[in-house]
Amino acid sequence: MFETISVIGGDLRQLTLARLLKDEGYHIFLYGFDKDIQLDGLELEPDKDFVLSSDIIVLPVPVSFDGIAINSPYAETPMTIEEFLDGINPSAMVFGGQIQPALKHALEENGIAYRDYLKREELSIRNAVPTAEGAIEIAMSETPITIHGSKCLVTGYGKIGKILSKMLCGLGAQTYVEARKYADLAMIEGHGYESLALGELKNMIGEFDIIFNTIPSMIFDETILKKIKKDALLIDLASKPGGVDFEAAKQLGVRVIWALSLPGKVAPTTSGAIIKDTIMNILKEMEV
Amino acid sequence: MFETISVIGGDLRQLTLARLLKDEGYHIFLYGFDKDIQLDGLELEPDKDFVLSSDIIVLPVPVSFDGIAINSPYAETPMTIEEFLDGINPSAMVFGGQIQPALKHALEENGIAYRDYLKREELSIRNAVPTAEGAIEIAMSETPITIHGSKCLVTGYGKIGKILSKMLCGLGAQTYVEARKYADLAMIEGHGYESLALGELKNMIGEFDIIFNTIPSMIFDETILKKIKKDALLIDLASKPGGVDFEAAKQLGVRVIWALSLPGKVAPTTSGAIIKDTIMNILKEMEV
Amino acid sequence: MFETISVIGGDLRQLTLARLLKDEGYHIFLYGFDKDIQLDGLELEPDKDFVLSSDIIVLPVPVSFDGIAINSPYAETPMTIEEFLDGINPSAMVFGGQIQPALKHALEENGIAYRDYLKREELSIRNAVPTAEGAIEIAMSETPITIHGSKCLVTGYGKIGKILSKMLCGLGAQTYVEARKYADLAMIEGHGYESLALGELKNMIGEFDIIFNTIPSMIFDETILKKIKKDALLIDLASKPGGVDFEAAKQLGVRVIWALSLPGKVAPTTSGAIIKDTIMNILKEMEV
Amino acid sequence: MFETISVIGGDLRQLTLARLLKDEGYHIFLYGFDKDIQLDGLELEPDKDFVLSSDIIVLPVPVSFDGIAINSPYAETPMTIEEFLDGINPSAMVFGGQIQPALKHALEENGIAYRDYLKREELSIRNAVPTAEGAIEIAMSETPITIHGSKCLVTGYGKIGKILSKMLCGLGAQTYVEARKYADLAMIEGHGYESLALGELKNMIGEFDIIFNTIPSMIFDETILKKIKKDALLIDLASKPGGVDFEAAKQLGVRVIWALSLPGKVAPTTSGAIIKDTIMNILKEMEV
Repeated sequence: MFETISVIGGDLRQLTLARLLKDEGYHIFLYGFDKDIQLDGLELEPDKDFVLSSDIIVLPVPVSFDGIAINSPYAETPMTIEEFLDGINPSAMVFGGQIQPALKHALEENGIAYRDYLKREELSIRNAVPTAEGAIEIAMSETPITIHGSKCLVTGYGKIGKILSKMLCGLGAQTYVEARKYADLAMIEGHGYESLALGELKNMIGEFDIIFNTIPSMIFDETILKKIKKDALLIDLASKPGGVDFEAAKQLGVRVIWALSLPGKVAPTTSGAIIKDTIMNILKEMEV
Repeated sequence: MFETISVIGGDLRQLTLARLLKDEGYHIFLYGFDKDIQLDGLELEPDKDFVLSSDIIVLPVPVSFDGIAINSPYAETPMTIEEFLDGINPSAMVFGGQIQPALKHALEENGIAYRDYLKREELSIRNAVPTAEGAIEIAMSETPITIHGSKCLVTGYGKIGKILSKMLCGLGAQTYVEARKYADLAMIEGHGYESLALGELKNMIGEFDIIFNTIPSMIFDETILKKIKKDALLIDLASKPGGVDFEAAKQLGVRVIWALSLPGKVAPTTSGAIIKDTIMNILKEMEV
Repeated sequence: MFETISVIGGDLRQLTLARLLKDEGYHIFLYGFDKDIQLDGLELEPDKDFVLSSDIIVLPVPVSFDGIAINSPYAETPMTIEEFLDGINPSAMVFGGQIQPALKHALEENGIAYRDYLKREELSIRNAVPTAEGAIEIAMSETPITIHGSKCLVTGYGKIGKILSKMLCGLGAQTYVEARKYADLAMIEGHGYESLALGELKNMIGEFDIIFNTIPSMIFDETILKKIKKDALLIDLASKPGGVDFEAAKQLGVRVIWALSLPGKVAPTTSGAIIKDTIMNILKEMEV
Repeated sequence: MFETISVIGGDLRQLTLARLLKDEGYHIFLYGFDKDIQLDGLELEPDKDFVLSSDIIVLPVPVSFDGIAINSPYAETPMTIEEFLDGINPSAMVFGGQIQPALKHALEENGIAYRDYLKREELSIRNAVPTAEGAIEIAMSETPITIHGSKCLVTGYGKIGKILSKMLCGLGAQTYVEARKYADLAMIEGHGYESLALGELKNMIGEFDIIFNTIPSMIFDETILKKIKKDALLIDLASKPGGVDFEAAKQLGVRVIWALSLPGKVAPTTSGAIIKDTIMNILKEMEV
């Protein structure tokens, strides 16, 4: 059904994705990788008109930082959103990560179908793997102790919490997981970790060597931060506002690292493969 | 607030529960354990009036098999539901497992508070542990092979599926888990098991040595059963209608074991402790 | 080089072994399975002369219980050792498990090559898997608690100790392993179990729910047995004299199960495959 | 028996060790930490005579790089070996890591007792933990993929091989371990990893994403290196000559990282604690 796919802008994830889609037999138009990068077998398509005429267009994550140009760190001259909208094949299917409202609106007005792959649950679950590994890599490089044998706390037992606690336990950490619901606490124990009810957090927090926060609301306020032991490291993986009062942490001398967007940073190849699989899932569902 | 607890009828789970509640400082009235059982330190309360006057009354699971007497395998003369309703302290709090509609109705008419602890999610999650172990015990005793190294399939990634796959993997089985949703498949892979989409079941089913079904709908129909390999064992853990066409299995010579209510059978002490914790959680929530 | 293999006597392990050797392309002469057993595709060779003329002869484990007849629970009339020695092809290669000195001596006198596969280290290591699973199956069926969450002790960190502790940990037990050497204690901790030095045994022994002994010397004497907690189960996996003062245990009311020769009992198919692989390894080494 | 301990030179490991020995109740003389480092509660002893008069003297690892001065990266003026030998209390007990022959000789001539803690097996086993974590940290930061899901090979199943394969498996890698002996291969499978006999290495090597060598002999020669897949990473953890033909690797474009002395680099606090425990074990054995 779909035969040509254009991959425009983005980082190594987009390049991996282009390579994998090519392996599936699609004809690939690659655009926006003309500086500081090796293409290993992929070819660039310099002609914008060709690029915009394909059946499927994959935009990067995020699609744009400024709302003007497509996010293209490896392009001499990034394609602009305007050029994109002007030239696009009206029957194309557009994929992108974190598509901003203005672009969505423009696509809708032109009757162009699009999907934000970041919204798909299988992507966010699979991204939990590189996120968890990235967090562990930070913990390894930023502490003078081994994960094995250390006392680690994971707050929250959602996607990242589940994978991260499994990995910490697999490395031999004393793994504690905090959750609010009895049902989550039961599942935490069922998986062999120590469970910690939210209410006990303030009593136990002083015992941990490494703390990983995955809850996007203010858990680590001044009261809690005060009890964290000297030399402990707090890694905040929660998106948007984060879960830590950074100002208070600074004043109290608590070491905090706010680690965002880890998948693209620590494992672009794996991340690109995840995006590719997600797009394939969406296409498969559309065919049905 | 509550000081006396009556434990009426049931099996070893109720006895464990009585013992643990006594350890918490409650005064216990035990009723219905006057034959074929050792009480080890607990005492019976022969006077029904005393028993029914307490603050809390814990009934067994199931509360009754026939709707007439309280399920009391260790009682010379089980207390009847009628006696129970006639004598009960109107301000008592009643706990029971699988309380039948007629009894619920009668309690409501009398304005007596009750809770069915089997309905609580933390109980059903924690029960996944004895259920999974019971299934593994069956697999061990009913096959001439070790779990370690065998190819095992778990269908469904709900409570039991999650715990069972973790344990099988921990024993060294080649662990495959079947699920429908992409999100579940991603989480299955994230935990280190092989994932199997529902659609692939018919292609792969012939490879498994031991199959554990946890899905309560007809997955194992004649078409699928035909492909299961000779010598394989199918253990159905799904409640109510089960997930296997037992008739077809019989005719095809597929070995199926329908394993129900495992927690009480294989680990009554652990099960009793789970019920006790659940009751304590409910009481704690009521105090707030 | 070798083309015909005779499999004489023994139990389901020998039958599995015969089937697997047949799959490797050998011509099999099967003897001693003429009652109470299904052969599923294998054929018996009734003629003793044929059986004893083959290139390789595989005897069961143990070869004989009484020194007179070959151990053959499924034979109407077992072959005797005398018949065996009288008829055997002098250039045959004989394999057996636990070959008694008298038979060894007779074989040597006749210049017949033989190997006791039970002496091979890869066999005893691989047998640790069915032994450990058998021990776990016993623990599951003989206690009213789940392995998950229970406090388990394994004494000794040899072949069985290593595999058993891994499996217990995989099921979610609180896994303690006792050893004497600092180096073993370090490796135990490295694998994520709690280590217990021999000297601490007497202080901690009262805390365990299930105790697995793998050390073939008297560790569990009266002094230690006295401290074991009521309701605990002690499973002795140590061969020959065992590691438990059974008399004292009986008087003290400590529950002990002496579990020997588990592989053949709990997983004959797996055990047969292990023996077959071991024989293949020996043959491969001989060819070099 | 011993009451004062001098800790001379070295890095953060020595400082951790000093702190932990102080916690055990010893009086500590710390020497050689007078620049670029925070002592957090420990005090320096500037007087060399005092330092050398103590009951126990702990030298760093390695004791010296040049045979002239004690290895003291945080000292303005390191103590020389000559000063050390001139001033030392003749009844002192000396501990050091990698004590060079000349110093051993001098100590022996003066009748001074010494122990090289690096020679102790429990230390080298416990060091396998920080070594394995260090190797994993390198793999995480030097590849664009996640460990989870990647195909990893560990060559050798000694101390480091055992711990590293456990951790890789715990992170969700497809974990293969190469060994020569059948017994090791059996134990590898018993722990749930894929085993690879040495002879199969050349056939399979092209499939791995990350390869960890722990064998200190030339395994990775040109023939093997040629088959490693592009983009794969080879991390050599083998001491002394290493196990890789680095020259050939360079010419073939195989990425190799030779990672030595990881414990002190990636986890000095954990390493210091390991050295301290080893010294305590030695002292305990001496008291008996």
